Amino acid sequence: MSLERALALAAERLGVAYPNPTVGAVVEHGGEVVGEGVTEPYGGRHGEIVALAAAGERALGATLYVTMEPCAHHGRTPPCVDAIRAAGIARVVAGCLDPDPEAAGGLDALRAAGVEVELDDRFEARRQNEAWRTWKALGRPFVTCKAAATLDGRVTVPGVRWVTGAPSRRLVHELRAASDAVAVGMGTVRADAPRLDARDVPVTRQPRRLAFGRGPLPDGCELELRSGPLAEELAALAAEGVQSLLLEGGPTLATAFLEQGLVDRLLLFVAPLLSGDGPRLLGDLAAPVGLTRLSARQVGDDVLLEAYVREP
Amino acid sequence: MSLERALALAAERLGVAYPNPTVGAVVEHGGEVVGEGVTEPYGGRHGEIVALAAAGERALGATLYVTMEPCAHHGRTPPCVDAIRAAGIARVVAGCLDPDPEAAGGLDALRAAGVEVELDDRFEARRQNEAWRTWKALGRPFVTCKAAATLDGRVTVPGVRWVTGAPSRRLVHELRAASDAVAVGMGTVRADAPRLDARDVPVTRQPRRLAFGRGPLPDGCELELRSGPLAEELAALAAEGVQSLLLEGGPTLATAFLEQGLVDRLLLFVAPLLSGDGPRLLGDLAAPVGLTRLSARQVGDDVLLEAYVREP
Repeated sequence: MSLERALALAAERLGVAYPNPTVGAVVEHGGEVVGEGVTEPYGGRHGEIVALAAAGERALGATLYVTMEPCAHHGRTPPCVDAIRAAGIARVVAGCLDPDPEAAGGLDALRAAGVEVELDDRFEARRQNEAWRTWKALGRPFVTCKAAATLDGRVTVPGVRWVTGAPSRRLVHELRAASDAVAVGMGTVRADAPRLDARDVPVTRQPRRLAFGRGPLPDGCELELRSGPLAEELAALAAEGVQSLLLEGGPTLATAFLEQGLVDRLLLFVAPLLSGDGPRLLGDLAAPVGLTRLSARQVGDDVLLEAYVREP
Repeated sequence: MSLERALALAAERLGVAYPNPTVGAVVEHGGEVVGEGVTEPYGGRHGEIVALAAAGERALGATLYVTMEPCAHHGRTPPCVDAIRAAGIARVVAGCLDPDPEAAGGLDALRAAGVEVELDDRFEARRQNEAWRTWKALGRPFVTCKAAATLDGRVTVPGVRWVTGAPSRRLVHELRAASDAVAVGMGTVRADAPRLDARDVPVTRQPRRLAFGRGPLPDGCELELRSGPLAEELAALAAEGVQSLLLEGGPTLATAFLEQGLVDRLLLFVAPLLSGDGPRLLGDLAAPVGLTRLSARQVGDDVLLEAYVREP
């Protein structure tokens, strides 16, 4: 249960350490929690260090549960591995490995130092920092392709302005607020002139707002035009610190990203309507694409389907 | 909470009284449950009567919670309304009205007799007997249109035999076992030669297995050919006691039923795949169709979406 507690601690603070990941940690001794911690805002302590400080001398011989493998390198802070050894922790249980080649190897280093280590790999642990993991591992942003469709897979309904309901539209604004960048294709730019900002929800900063495709942009359009090949643009965005990209373009952009293997996650809002007319949510693909972790949740009168093309 | 208890009692016995509905009842006196009942197998007592018998003299001045308005007519059994009055029930709370013109009016009759009555209309109460209600109200079976598709709304995937997983396919057999009839169109007959029986699940009786469309049926096909206009065939099936029909045909049959307003409920199994090729789950419609009560549940790795075209 302590790993679940560490995950819950981290879940409440996701994003605070951007561009670093958020890690939760629990120190348990004799079945009792003697210290808890979560990564502090950027520049502060890692979650493990906060938990060890809280535990004090009770860390001696204790088990440390941590949502990600402790770091083994000097970054802005000294290696967590050293602090864990110094505190006399007997056992470390980690929820996932560190995908960063510079920081990884923490579990191996602990094992070599005589600490008992266990990798209890959890999708939830990987998901908490999915954008950062993908950015570190692939050098591109974690790409979420969002679409809204009727139950028969159409993206428009004759005579209807909004396919989905107000709670779904609000959730889209929350997704924008949690993304480093939001993008559409030129078809959507011309058809809808979207602003793509996060409105009527709490925001710490607005996402970068992009249009993929050939210019020029229409007069008054404030989106940032990205006209290069998609993979090249994603690498450039990653170099500028964009860890997460929310694709809100139409079927053409979504199909292009999928065909090039550049989508990590799909979010499909399904509305209680049969349209019977209008564009389909996705065009033809050269080959089928397998998905994992398909799940559903109710959002007002709509259902939100989520699936992964590539797990973080 | 007592109406919920009555619904739970009925939920465990749905279908036992076929062709009659199943009704749950709870007698509550002074905050205490003093009697419970559910409709007995066909020919037996209604749920209210069972609950009143269990309550005995404690029914005097009590509240009766019942999932459907008590009957006001002599059918195979005397009117429940008379028994409720005779037992001295002070108040009746019903979960829905009775759609049968012959049996309805129970709440009015009770009110006229000085019993306090309340209609606490619940979708769950109507849903429990949705097939029977539709059959009584419209003179046709309750029609469920079932389909299976990928997340991009295709019904086939290149190189893949089954779009959905084993738990979904098992659930389809359970749906067949709970249906009075199962049907496909001639396109599906010719393409798949389906047997349409309920296999590897408990069955009290196999559903009637139908093919809608022009004959002849292929050699060896054991389906029952129904070649008339759809509404006419449904009326004929209703007259033969078919209260529920599960449509498993392809897009052509589903579209024809929808266009003619003959579908009550949609069940869409969504598989964790993008097909990118093959037929769409539904064709063009002359006009959009509004749905209600869209909901989702996990079935293995798939998600099952359910929505109503027409609520029972």
